[in-house]
Amino acid sequence: MSVLQEISPSVRNMWQLEYGVLARQASQIKEQLRQGVRKPYQEVIDVSWGDPHRGGLKPLSFVRQVLAACLYPELVNSDKLPVDVRQRAQRLLGGCVGGSVGSYTTTAGISEIVQRVSEFITRRDGGAPSYPENIYISPGSQWSLTNIFTVLVNSEGSPRAGVLTPVPSHCTTTLSMVGLGAVIVPYYLSEEQGWELKVEELHRALESVKGVCKPVALYVINPGNPSGHVQSRKSMQEVIRFASKKRLFLLADEVYQDCVYGEKSEFFSYKRVLSEMGPPLSDTVELASFHSASKGFMGECGLRGGYVELVNLDPAVMKYIYNLFSIDSCAPVLGQIALDLMTNPPQPGDPSYPLYNMETQHIRAALIRNVKRAHEVFNSLLGFSCQPVEGGAFAFPSLHLPPKVIQKAKEVGMQPDTFYCMRLLEEAGVLASPGCEYGQKEGTYHIRFCIMAAEETMEEVLRRLTSFHTQFMEDSS
Amino acid sequence: MSVLQEISPSVRNMWQLEYGVLARQASQIKEQLRQGVRKPYQEVIDVSWGDPHRGGLKPLSFVRQVLAACLYPELVNSDKLPVDVRQRAQRLLGGCVGGSVGSYTTTAGISEIVQRVSEFITRRDGGAPSYPENIYISPGSQWSLTNIFTVLVNSEGSPRAGVLTPVPSHCTTTLSMVGLGAVIVPYYLSEEQGWELKVEELHRALESVKGVCKPVALYVINPGNPSGHVQSRKSMQEVIRFASKKRLFLLADEVYQDCVYGEKSEFFSYKRVLSEMGPPLSDTVELASFHSASKGFMGECGLRGGYVELVNLDPAVMKYIYNLFSIDSCAPVLGQIALDLMTNPPQPGDPSYPLYNMETQHIRAALIRNVKRAHEVFNSLLGFSCQPVEGGAFAFPSLHLPPKVIQKAKEVGMQPDTFYCMRLLEEAGVLASPGCEYGQKEGTYHIRFCIMAAEETMEEVLRRLTSFHTQFMEDSS
Repeated sequence: MSVLQEISPSVRNMWQLEYGVLARQASQIKEQLRQGVRKPYQEVIDVSWGDPHRGGLKPLSFVRQVLAACLYPELVNSDKLPVDVRQRAQRLLGGCVGGSVGSYTTTAGISEIVQRVSEFITRRDGGAPSYPENIYISPGSQWSLTNIFTVLVNSEGSPRAGVLTPVPSHCTTTLSMVGLGAVIVPYYLSEEQGWELKVEELHRALESVKGVCKPVALYVINPGNPSGHVQSRKSMQEVIRFASKKRLFLLADEVYQDCVYGEKSEFFSYKRVLSEMGPPLSDTVELASFHSASKGFMGECGLRGGYVELVNLDPAVMKYIYNLFSIDSCAPVLGQIALDLMTNPPQPGDPSYPLYNMETQHIRAALIRNVKRAHEVFNSLLGFSCQPVEGGAFAFPSLHLPPKVIQKAKEVGMQPDTFYCMRLLEEAGVLASPGCEYGQKEGTYHIRFCIMAAEETMEEVLRRLTSFHTQFMEDSS
Repeated sequence: MSVLQEISPSVRNMWQLEYGVLARQASQIKEQLRQGVRKPYQEVIDVSWGDPHRGGLKPLSFVRQVLAACLYPELVNSDKLPVDVRQRAQRLLGGCVGGSVGSYTTTAGISEIVQRVSEFITRRDGGAPSYPENIYISPGSQWSLTNIFTVLVNSEGSPRAGVLTPVPSHCTTTLSMVGLGAVIVPYYLSEEQGWELKVEELHRALESVKGVCKPVALYVINPGNPSGHVQSRKSMQEVIRFASKKRLFLLADEVYQDCVYGEKSEFFSYKRVLSEMGPPLSDTVELASFHSASKGFMGECGLRGGYVELVNLDPAVMKYIYNLFSIDSCAPVLGQIALDLMTNPPQPGDPSYPLYNMETQHIRAALIRNVKRAHEVFNSLLGFSCQPVEGGAFAFPSLHLPPKVIQKAKEVGMQPDTFYCMRLLEEAGVLASPGCEYGQKEGTYHIRFCIMAAEETMEEVLRRLTSFHTQFMEDSS
């Protein structure tokens, strides 16, 4: 047998993430540390993923209590848990078939939860209506994105479908588009302007692929990953007008909507801005907006719960989307429940509110401080410069590498920023990820650091980085 | 915008499941019952899915206790839980990054769990070695299947890739192949011989598509869904020889491996049989074997945990498989933990063993009794005939419908067995699924009933069915 020759070109086009090499090296180092090998550090700190608990942030008690009670309903009768926890668990179990989180749910998710998510969206968007039948819960938002791409990207079409995609961008999303046979049409965010999205650049990108592919969609990430930029309402209006004029389906990755740190920044959803622009735009622009329980203050990445809301889609298209979602039965029930808790947290007066409020305020304060400290330190290091981090989970400083380093990286067959990350890992025990993973202007280099971490973790990362980098630059100049 | 015209032919080819119409009607009936509308029944019993908790089977206490303790580690310190539960939770949390089930895991799953799953496979298969690097955990086994298909089916190839697929078969798997652009090459299971798989039929199927497509894979389900057949070792050897000779990748859906009821039936995995056949077959036949925490005695469908083991794959192909799995980060951590518990249940001497043993024995006894009773009742009804159910979650009796019924169904635009299911639902409050959903020989009709249910549920289903069917046949003759 020789399956290899049969593999479709699109799947072949998917590249290996740089992260793989770094992660394998990190595993080896951890193993060495376990075996007592002496290093200048006692443990590897991993800030390469947007994974709050990995960085030492704690889960929210209310969330974990409700989930535990849903799994093991005897806890519902235990007076060790607050009464609102027990009530919520009981209510949620009432929505599970057979009263068990072990049953399948309908394709889009438990209907009570879908309903409550849609009510949350309406509240968030200042009353712009949201309809439960337009919402699909999935095992993480990336999964929804892939399903929507599958409908948008006709892998058998000629010319191929193109998707306008930011540079830098969330790398697995880009990979999933490539695997489906889409042509990535890069548009560059404006680093010098804090990674702003410029509509002129969208025009340029679209022009550049005339005759090469048929652009069908525009993908935006707001707040940005890895950029940390938060879009203004005005910029979003321009993007919407552009999408409308160019007949592009708008994909809005909004999973970091709760993570806004800039004093002058505010998150608006594309759904809201579109709705406020009124007809004909608000009735015609096709939009998919994604959110997730993995990010924000819950940070429950491991539960795998996300959703997509679809706006202005042709009912005939919705039918195909339903078909695609139905193949995998349903999203994990506990991920679905996490979305219920995220969109309907305890309110003042509820027994769980004081603790919930304390925990979320603590996390918020830590993140704001992390962002400030990271910005300070990066901009104090020779060869580093960092735009303000207004939102999201990452700082994405630019790294000005000496020619000697670039040469050395080439010699060992690595991208210069991967080379830097490898040295940082080996010498300082910090696992960060290289800018080449996310896309960057040719000749520029970046490093992505997750700032969703406990304050002491962040401080230790910055301390190790400072000491490593100073030595590294000295050795390389 | 008009995305509709762009939708790829493969996605368009995915048909709507008949189940949708029935499920919507069931929802309406439930709503009517809630509003006090009088019906000949007080609730709808849903035996349309292979979903044990839906049918009233209870989750296993050990499983739920460990999961709850992993979610809310304060329980680990509570003396309300058995000591082995707390130890297991502690051990599992040690494998989670940051000690939290809320962190992402590596792509293939938590390495300790993958290791333990591979040890389970080796034990199960009489020592045939299993290697952790060949195992991927995913959100349910269907998800793994889709990824493997994505690699096998070159949607851009000409002629198209074909997959030999049983009739009847698990319908969402068939749909997922269609969505990826595969040609379904049906091979018919032999109903008269208890739904046996005949290798002559595989030859016939393959011959029939000469020049039409390029067959690349053979999909088998053992124990059968919906057939209830359990393959003999001899039959599996024939299938393996056929796959080898015809250079087909073997996909073995083995999620019902713990559910064998026939006194003379025994489950063997394809991996084991292949391994025991020795070289050159054991070194060359490419095999993917799927298992899941959704089925068996745990029945934890809602947690979404499954795995695939890959055998004899080219390392270059494994690289693409890794890429595909990496897109969605990882499987739900609680689904991963469920797999750990399924493959490593409490042992004699463990504090949790007596209760675990009692609960599983109770479920096993209930299923064996359900199968026996279903078989008796189906074969006692005029117009029904049912092959022995040796394994799996379903009885799939044949239904001999009077011409009058077939005519009436045509008039309302329904498949005859969907028409029967609709009447059964409306008049008797039983939601079962029609054979046309799974494929059947032209002119034959079947109904699929899930037998993974509490005994009292099963009895009530059979009671309602008997009464409905007798009247239905009287009215239709």
